[in-house]
Amino acid sequence: MLIIEPKLPGKFSEITARFDKKTRLDDYPANAYKYAELDKYSKKEVHEIAEDVLDKSRLSLETAQDKLWASKKYGVLIVLQGMDTAGKDGTIRHVMSGVNPQGCRVQCFKTPTTEEHAHDFLWRYGKVLPERGEIVIFNRSHYEDVLAVKVHPEYMEALPKELVDDCSPEFWQNRYQDISAWERHLARNGVLVLKFFLHISKNEQKRRLLERIDIEEKNWKISPADLKERTFWDQYTTAFEDAITNTSRMFAPWIIVPANDKKIARAIVADVIAKAIDNLDIEYPEVSQAQKDSLQEARRQLESEQ
Amino acid sequence: MLIIEPKLPGKFSEITARFDKKTRLDDYPANAYKYAELDKYSKKEVHEIAEDVLDKSRLSLETAQDKLWASKKYGVLIVLQGMDTAGKDGTIRHVMSGVNPQGCRVQCFKTPTTEEHAHDFLWRYGKVLPERGEIVIFNRSHYEDVLAVKVHPEYMEALPKELVDDCSPEFWQNRYQDISAWERHLARNGVLVLKFFLHISKNEQKRRLLERIDIEEKNWKISPADLKERTFWDQYTTAFEDAITNTSRMFAPWIIVPANDKKIARAIVADVIAKAIDNLDIEYPEVSQAQKDSLQEARRQLESEQ
Repeated sequence: MLIIEPKLPGKFSEITARFDKKTRLDDYPANAYKYAELDKYSKKEVHEIAEDVLDKSRLSLETAQDKLWASKKYGVLIVLQGMDTAGKDGTIRHVMSGVNPQGCRVQCFKTPTTEEHAHDFLWRYGKVLPERGEIVIFNRSHYEDVLAVKVHPEYMEALPKELVDDCSPEFWQNRYQDISAWERHLARNGVLVLKFFLHISKNEQKRRLLERIDIEEKNWKISPADLKERTFWDQYTTAFEDAITNTSRMFAPWIIVPANDKKIARAIVADVIAKAIDNLDIEYPEVSQAQKDSLQEARRQLESEQ
Repeated sequence: MLIIEPKLPGKFSEITARFDKKTRLDDYPANAYKYAELDKYSKKEVHEIAEDVLDKSRLSLETAQDKLWASKKYGVLIVLQGMDTAGKDGTIRHVMSGVNPQGCRVQCFKTPTTEEHAHDFLWRYGKVLPERGEIVIFNRSHYEDVLAVKVHPEYMEALPKELVDDCSPEFWQNRYQDISAWERHLARNGVLVLKFFLHISKNEQKRRLLERIDIEEKNWKISPADLKERTFWDQYTTAFEDAITNTSRMFAPWIIVPANDKKIARAIVADVIAKAIDNLDIEYPEVSQAQKDSLQEARRQLESEQ
């Protein structure tokens, strides 16, 4: 069991979805304050701690990314998933803002194009994987093909009927198996795969949707489709539980982030990413004595310029 | 056990590498005449039969490809491997010459670029997979990463040492596992994967190399590197046997083609591909009565033009 333990003073040691048993989201509070120990602080104090963790993590992420980029050994793939309004965009903005954009890329995925539908479902994700040295964030990801697509099988209308196999349980099991085999292959080839589920409660979603309706500057963020999707809450919950159960593995763990409180969620994500990259065996490339000598020679030449 | 039985009058029923036991190339004659029943014909007669099979297969391949392209349900991936001089280029020319190049593509793979080395080893192959409707031939393929690269581990110098793991048996086993999981994923997503090993004997290679030296028009085809590679014959044989054993599966079988005689080899490859595509559940898209009516309406309009 991989222990991802954020620096926050709660009992967060088990927010990595276990590799050996069925995941039930009810077992992972969306409300971070339920992770004991936070009880003794006021909300304001908790937020101060969270801010502090976020700041320190961003700093250490900056250094880690610099080493990652210089050493060109590993790539980092960060998968962000969650219900609508779970805070994916804000998390990216706050967690990655210190990071050098040369070497960091965010990928969103729209409705598949005709060309993408003409290939296996992982094809479009494979093309935009991180190179060694790079961090790539999938804002939604290949998991949509076992989440939104599972809740709405009609999204597969463009595929040959025979291949969809009446969406039997075996069909989805095969997709989980293919996803997991792919992530194992990536891990073996030097990609660090980290997957975050931003976990909010149904009530918190209601609050956020109302906010988007009430605050004019947030109106653009909401569409009738979002309200429609909310009616599928239970189906999505089941789909997430199945996906996480079948694909949380040592080589590509799922971290279930309590996300009802955005500040805490961001602190956790930043902390986990920074630590995970820091754990990689990366150093700035070694400079040999010969190279150092030639640098000194270059110094002499530069200094002797007229 | 998938039975691929070419129309030639030999006992070719078992040239598909078995899925349940170790492949030994010695069990598959490179000399097609050893497949009994050919004995009773003269070489000339055998060649006439082979020509006939090749012609008929090319014709049926033409029709099959037309349906494949129209129905856009399946893609076809053909992998061609073999020792140097085994006849890969000639096979492509002779087998695929009747096929409409719109919908058929040949992919060669050179020394990996820096960008390719910066990704997992399957990445560059994934990008050029067939779309539904398309036939793509890999003239050499992802198998080079467990063939040439296994014989010459120094080809992996550009990769981080930690990932190459001292080329332990487990390292190669992982690569076979990744390849096989990938091919299974492709098959599940509608790609017909057919893999041909053009099997020649060491003596036949000697004869062909000498021919390339003696016939001036063939000189361009030979380099000192080819002669060097020949000294690794036994290592390549072992690498092929291991790769075939670990990746010949119902969803992506290896066909071991007796290739000492080029005409027979081409007839077999053409026949197997034509039959396999023909076996797919493909038809021209159905035209509804409404569509037919609108076609008749279009006819009336065209005919009434001044």
